[in-house]
Amino acid sequence: MFKSVDMAADFLKNQNEICLLCHMSPDGDTLGSAFAIFYALKSLGKKCFVDCADDFPKKFHYIYPSKMDKFKPKHYVTVDVADVKLLGKEQRDLPYDLCIDHHEMNRVSAKQKCIDMNAAATAEIVYDILKKMEIIFDKTIANCLYTGICTDTGCFKFSNTSAKTHRIAADLIDLKAESEKINFKLFEEKSKARLCLEKQVLENLEYYFNDRCTLVFVTKKMLKEAGADDSTFEGIPSIVRCPTGVEIGITVKECDIDIYKVSVRTVENFDAAEFCGIFGGGGHKMAAGFKIKGSALEVKRKILQAVEGKIIG
Amino acid sequence: MFKSVDMAADFLKNQNEICLLCHMSPDGDTLGSAFAIFYALKSLGKKCFVDCADDFPKKFHYIYPSKMDKFKPKHYVTVDVADVKLLGKEQRDLPYDLCIDHHEMNRVSAKQKCIDMNAAATAEIVYDILKKMEIIFDKTIANCLYTGICTDTGCFKFSNTSAKTHRIAADLIDLKAESEKINFKLFEEKSKARLCLEKQVLENLEYYFNDRCTLVFVTKKMLKEAGADDSTFEGIPSIVRCPTGVEIGITVKECDIDIYKVSVRTVENFDAAEFCGIFGGGGHKMAAGFKIKGSALEVKRKILQAVEGKIIG
Repeated sequence: MFKSVDMAADFLKNQNEICLLCHMSPDGDTLGSAFAIFYALKSLGKKCFVDCADDFPKKFHYIYPSKMDKFKPKHYVTVDVADVKLLGKEQRDLPYDLCIDHHEMNRVSAKQKCIDMNAAATAEIVYDILKKMEIIFDKTIANCLYTGICTDTGCFKFSNTSAKTHRIAADLIDLKAESEKINFKLFEEKSKARLCLEKQVLENLEYYFNDRCTLVFVTKKMLKEAGADDSTFEGIPSIVRCPTGVEIGITVKECDIDIYKVSVRTVENFDAAEFCGIFGGGGHKMAAGFKIKGSALEVKRKILQAVEGKIIG
Repeated sequence: MFKSVDMAADFLKNQNEICLLCHMSPDGDTLGSAFAIFYALKSLGKKCFVDCADDFPKKFHYIYPSKMDKFKPKHYVTVDVADVKLLGKEQRDLPYDLCIDHHEMNRVSAKQKCIDMNAAATAEIVYDILKKMEIIFDKTIANCLYTGICTDTGCFKFSNTSAKTHRIAADLIDLKAESEKINFKLFEEKSKARLCLEKQVLENLEYYFNDRCTLVFVTKKMLKEAGADDSTFEGIPSIVRCPTGVEIGITVKECDIDIYKVSVRTVENFDAAEFCGIFGGGGHKMAAGFKIKGSALEVKRKILQAVEGKIIG
């Protein structure tokens, strides 16, 4: 790991005219990490810009510079991008010079790669790189990195949060990162559409097998009524699993007529990936998913039958 | 601060037969802090026990020892208790030897006091005391202190979270604190009653003044329907403030016929304490409250009139 941090620091210090690429549907980690590098390079008087196939979400307004000009870059650096499929079409076949990422399965072909799977967020790696570059961290850089870390750890809640994560957060707070404001934006504030969707989910939540299983259908009608888009739906499956005693929470989202995307969240000792494997899907131990075709009734029957096999069996 | 930590460490190291007192409606900080001291004293072969006028909540089961005998103690130590009123009646007029706390207005009369208002949680102070005592932290002690810190910082979200808080959390994770499990228990898992209450709140949430103000009535009927008690209601006022753009979120809880308890949550630049002062109440800048009498309609009219004065004026 340390060797590749040195290499990334050398590259960024010695090159100029750099384009930093974020993944589509950009989140706080890809944006926070890329803009932290942007401000660091700017502080060294270099030419650079951050690019993304999707618009920069308003939510992270405090990260963006007041002015940023695009130009034909000499170098491309991907930041928090696990796969080139996650870049826009026009960004997909470029000669990437450097890839900075923390995803387990990074599939970006770059001349040099700086990957640390143990980092909770790409922002942790960027912190190390900028330290190595001897960048003077101002409040803006601290805010960028803090945003990246909080996004990917669910505010230090997820299992990826390490002692190192907390030590970096401590440094960033010393450097005046506005942790309270950022956490409010990321974890407290909710759109009207989101609140409406949460209400609908709670209204339609069904309990099965002695309250050990919850299931909810999120129909296109519900999404439309709430005014919800894909980003509004993010995190809903976690709500479905949260009642005390529930071992498996199942969210069935209607994609098209008789086509459903199922998100499964479980607690320890209930393998979500294995469960989803029954339906040809997969994922992680406590979060997995699959696609299924059929009428709502059929789909529900099949899923509950599979749950019964696991819970009773 | 350091002096009183030394003093507390000396006291705990040199005395025996100690009763550690938690406040009523015990939370993760009073329990985590008291039991951390309990395990530390036990590791030194001392006689001690933790006492509380209320039952120890099941939620924190992972903190409690399998066996703990009460006895007539020689010394009393209050832990995270801001005022003797927060102790049970029988615990109120005892000769307290030591008071360990982080509340701004500590009113406990004890022979010796170890108070640090800058600590995010009493658990932070206890961490310093046990370090000073050269206690070997096992996983159980780490879990106790981590629980205290997470409880009082809302998992590192609130403004009281300092760089020091994060550094202690890092140490506790190094010491094998089960952060993921604890955070699930504290922040993800919800009772059926709580989810039902949240649903009702979202169903009844009203928007005023161009969505800059939200208001909800939580009636006794709603609480009964949900099967909710006081602890279920905790945190509801924060939900009321969370829609994007809302500057003041008002929760009006029915206490008795025509008697209401009003909880006000605001964003920066809207002084909640000042607002509640209009009705004879008070509190903090972003969280305050008051009591009001009248019919539901009257109460609502008066409150909205006051909001209008602040928002338009």
